[in-house]
Amino acid sequence: METALSGRIWRTQQGGQTVYVVHGSVPENVLGGLEVVSSVKTTKSFMLASREYSRENSLVKIGGAEFGGSDVVICAGPCAVESREQMLETARAVKRSGGTVLRGGAFKPRTSPYSFQGLGEEGLRILKEVSDEVGLPVVTEVTSPDQVALISKYADALQVGARNMQNFELLKAVGRSRLPVLLKRGISATIEEWLLAAEYILLGGNWNVILCERGIRTFVTDTRNVLDIAEVALVKDLTHLPVIVDPSHATGRRDIIPAASRAAVAAGADGLIVEVHPKPESALSDGPQSLTFNEFNSMVREVAAVARAVGRRVPNCEQLP
Amino acid sequence: METALSGRIWRTQQGGQTVYVVHGSVPENVLGGLEVVSSVKTTKSFMLASREYSRENSLVKIGGAEFGGSDVVICAGPCAVESREQMLETARAVKRSGGTVLRGGAFKPRTSPYSFQGLGEEGLRILKEVSDEVGLPVVTEVTSPDQVALISKYADALQVGARNMQNFELLKAVGRSRLPVLLKRGISATIEEWLLAAEYILLGGNWNVILCERGIRTFVTDTRNVLDIAEVALVKDLTHLPVIVDPSHATGRRDIIPAASRAAVAAGADGLIVEVHPKPESALSDGPQSLTFNEFNSMVREVAAVARAVGRRVPNCEQLP
Amino acid sequence: METALSGRIWRTQQGGQTVYVVHGSVPENVLGGLEVVSSVKTTKSFMLASREYSRENSLVKIGGAEFGGSDVVICAGPCAVESREQMLETARAVKRSGGTVLRGGAFKPRTSPYSFQGLGEEGLRILKEVSDEVGLPVVTEVTSPDQVALISKYADALQVGARNMQNFELLKAVGRSRLPVLLKRGISATIEEWLLAAEYILLGGNWNVILCERGIRTFVTDTRNVLDIAEVALVKDLTHLPVIVDPSHATGRRDIIPAASRAAVAAGADGLIVEVHPKPESALSDGPQSLTFNEFNSMVREVAAVARAVGRRVPNCEQLP
Amino acid sequence: METALSGRIWRTQQGGQTVYVVHGSVPENVLGGLEVVSSVKTTKSFMLASREYSRENSLVKIGGAEFGGSDVVICAGPCAVESREQMLETARAVKRSGGTVLRGGAFKPRTSPYSFQGLGEEGLRILKEVSDEVGLPVVTEVTSPDQVALISKYADALQVGARNMQNFELLKAVGRSRLPVLLKRGISATIEEWLLAAEYILLGGNWNVILCERGIRTFVTDTRNVLDIAEVALVKDLTHLPVIVDPSHATGRRDIIPAASRAAVAAGADGLIVEVHPKPESALSDGPQSLTFNEFNSMVREVAAVARAVGRRVPNCEQLP
Repeated sequence: METALSGRIWRTQQGGQTVYVVHGSVPENVLGGLEVVSSVKTTKSFMLASREYSRENSLVKIGGAEFGGSDVVICAGPCAVESREQMLETARAVKRSGGTVLRGGAFKPRTSPYSFQGLGEEGLRILKEVSDEVGLPVVTEVTSPDQVALISKYADALQVGARNMQNFELLKAVGRSRLPVLLKRGISATIEEWLLAAEYILLGGNWNVILCERGIRTFVTDTRNVLDIAEVALVKDLTHLPVIVDPSHATGRRDIIPAASRAAVAAGADGLIVEVHPKPESALSDGPQSLTFNEFNSMVREVAAVARAVGRRVPNCEQLP
Repeated sequence: METALSGRIWRTQQGGQTVYVVHGSVPENVLGGLEVVSSVKTTKSFMLASREYSRENSLVKIGGAEFGGSDVVICAGPCAVESREQMLETARAVKRSGGTVLRGGAFKPRTSPYSFQGLGEEGLRILKEVSDEVGLPVVTEVTSPDQVALISKYADALQVGARNMQNFELLKAVGRSRLPVLLKRGISATIEEWLLAAEYILLGGNWNVILCERGIRTFVTDTRNVLDIAEVALVKDLTHLPVIVDPSHATGRRDIIPAASRAAVAAGADGLIVEVHPKPESALSDGPQSLTFNEFNSMVREVAAVARAVGRRVPNCEQLP
Repeated sequence: METALSGRIWRTQQGGQTVYVVHGSVPENVLGGLEVVSSVKTTKSFMLASREYSRENSLVKIGGAEFGGSDVVICAGPCAVESREQMLETARAVKRSGGTVLRGGAFKPRTSPYSFQGLGEEGLRILKEVSDEVGLPVVTEVTSPDQVALISKYADALQVGARNMQNFELLKAVGRSRLPVLLKRGISATIEEWLLAAEYILLGGNWNVILCERGIRTFVTDTRNVLDIAEVALVKDLTHLPVIVDPSHATGRRDIIPAASRAAVAAGADGLIVEVHPKPESALSDGPQSLTFNEFNSMVREVAAVARAVGRRVPNCEQLP
Repeated sequence: METALSGRIWRTQQGGQTVYVVHGSVPENVLGGLEVVSSVKTTKSFMLASREYSRENSLVKIGGAEFGGSDVVICAGPCAVESREQMLETARAVKRSGGTVLRGGAFKPRTSPYSFQGLGEEGLRILKEVSDEVGLPVVTEVTSPDQVALISKYADALQVGARNMQNFELLKAVGRSRLPVLLKRGISATIEEWLLAAEYILLGGNWNVILCERGIRTFVTDTRNVLDIAEVALVKDLTHLPVIVDPSHATGRRDIIPAASRAAVAAGADGLIVEVHPKPESALSDGPQSLTFNEFNSMVREVAAVARAVGRRVPNCEQLP
């Protein structure tokens, strides 16, 4: 018997399984009736990313840190890698206070061509050395498809920044990788646009996607951006992917990062990514929103208390004095 | 000796004291030298509302509920007073779950002239009766200067809604009252505009002002508004006045009100004002953002846990089973 | 025969006719069949304001100036009435350059209580005298229901400012008046909210409503607000009411007011309301966005050229040298 | 004599000249005193793009069409290249009505991975053939650094879309090209961010940059975006580069594109880029915002009338019947 299928079809992989994404008016029973098909799901415009696709939370690992489970994972580090000494000092402070992933940018997307653009491969080398020495996995930003291979030699996870959330060629490139991808929300992206950006990566076969809310642009100028806190809860309902929050870019102000961090965890975030610097006042970028080591340490303790209040934990933080 | 004072001067009262607000280039030592002057302070554009004016938190009371201290005060009730039965049932549920202030609108500012406009004085009468019977103080909205006297006969506190945040004649009118005023942030108000609105009330001699963040209008359509959570922490730094959060209007979605409420308290809010209705699906206004009694009860417990994690408490909530 | 009417009904007047607004599921043929009913129309949520209610443009007059026809009407004057001399000098300059309505505020809604609040009734008296002497009708702002009667003694039209667009008690009050009402769009109002605000006035029986776009609040800080120019064309399609543009508040910058004015007329605006001041640098309010007399004169000529290009005219401007 | 120069220095080319961009505190007289230096200019953060750098308008040519002079250039074509027939038919209609540049996308950046992604190189081939046959130069979008070489074989100008305005690797890549670049404003970009994006291209040595305003994202949902019309005039003041407007993306609605186009030219735009399609209702993308040939023809005539009113002309449009 012949059946006219009017939809279009995409094929991707999830673990060892082949997933066919069918877009259009294809009768469900036709597909379900095929012997090779084990199950059929009807979903939203973001098909693979949706809760309808997977009721269970996806767990994504960067090194030993697991996102999407009961842990609240703290990622921290400077905005940009500036020197081996700066990274090493910071990494040790991060680990000491309960952070389990190290961040640091080697390729910096800067608004002005005259601003510090990052150390490039030299920065990656520093990240790798420090990561090995201190024992923290590393996430760093990728800004172009042709950097994916290079960065993969040094880092444990790839970050796609807010300005590149709809750089679709880059999304396709990280979708072909198997490294975890931290996908930041664009500065004025809707949730659907954000989840469709994640969909590009999932469709490429890379299911290790962590979403990161980092504030949106509004009329407000008191803070750098507006932390869209309710959306954290909403996105957790709409997708099975982990969602973390970047309180540093969301607020741009050191004085309210602790409050924003507590709020994020209270709302259900699976983790935080925070800027920390040995000397924020002399940082080559984002100084005003970087915490000192002491401020970071206090913040983690406050966050850990809130995590417990919502039935979760910050790993490696219990043992704090 | 003569000194040229080029500034302008306003006079108001705080408690038993006379406060002169001087705007302009008046040498501080000239004023300080006058025998009748006990102290001189230099402040921001919002002079009376600023932290520079008062380092200590102002404590504002509605009935027995105290805002601005260590308590996290839960205000709750329906959007609009619809009937005595609805109010009574709701007030009892609110009290049972740990709410200590009752809300309910008798004069409803509605976008459309064809929408339910509230019961008016009949609604006030119901509020008063229920308040007395259940033992909860009442806050209700005032939408016009000439309603202040009427509402004051029935209610314990006046609410100025977001749309009226810059209705300056109304601000002056509630400034002449001595009832506590709940001043909502306008849908696209900056913090300075909001604190200057409070300034109108303080300058009138009414120091019982509670600020209420209720979400801002942005490009986001997934939620009714965007809860500007970082601003709660920021405003607490800028003013001595108490700040509470309205998660109902901020999100417009029942499913994420609990998460938004937890986040608000984690960020430092002094209380919440939440919409609760016996049957949200048949509410005359704001049904989709009203909690059922059960949902409200769960929310208060979650909030109480977060309050403890940040060193505060929801009064009357300890005894929950 | 009996028919169940489940809708609610409002009654208002338009000219000599009674208009019933029915909200709900009332069968059209039932109403149309009644002898006293001459016609039945089905409309949008803003029923009386909609194009469905009246295909023809409504013509609204302030003095001799007609809005909504082929004329492009120029209203101009200072932000605030400061003195008789200032008003007289400005009114003469406005008339000389082709302006046909005079503006000037006596009751000023100011963000800060410490800013100049206007001259009040003294300002109204000046407006009236100057209006009579120069021969220009006057529009001035009303900020409270109880000012309507007072202002009506002196002015030819009432302005409801952006901050009061949803001050519903004020809308009802000007709806009971028969003076023309200039209704500014709120700083973050949707078109539907704006037209529903107009609906409050129409429903009160006052059909002399002129809409005024004055810029919206967005993330942009280069200009005071963002002139929503496409909306002018859109609103003209959605309503029969005249629509004018305030390029002064929309941009907040003297240097681009002429460009914004040309754009407004090119897009289909029925007029402009512009701030003009003898000495902008010493204006008591809005100096940076006030044109000098020369700048105003040039602007009107540029606007007149664009008006001709779109098949319209600025009256009294042909005779310019 | 030695002088300490504390700034950093970049070198680029403009025409046959070498330009040094110095960032920091370098005394002007030191540089000016060097024999090889012919002139020194002090500018804004966007140094090469600023009016201070060049008082005179830069003239940029795509084929025979000149942007930045007295002409108002009309660029038009479909959103996406769909077939040779569609392009040929459209190109002829565009030329007939007074358009002088053809647009059409071969690489389409789409929000959803499931949407039509463009014909790729096949689309470029069609563009080139049609361009040659009809005699219109072609602009098409580039979405990745590695596409620049390929597209340069077929097209006369490169378009950088709104989503890629801060894809800095792409900006650097088109900066190394010498083809004209149409740089769209990001959906929530400030003017400074936009001009700094242009700066990346200029600094690469490519001075053929045309800016394109295409609407910003705000709370407004009545139109797809908000056309920031005042900014056109403002940007013309801030930079020497040509500025055009895309009324199709700015409004997203066929019915108001003509009004938006007239407004753009009235405000001072150097051109327009408009979506036109033989059958908008069956377009593979952006149908609702594509004009029919007849609508386009009317629009160009209206625009030409406004252009004359502001002392400019739409070339090839005089001869319209």
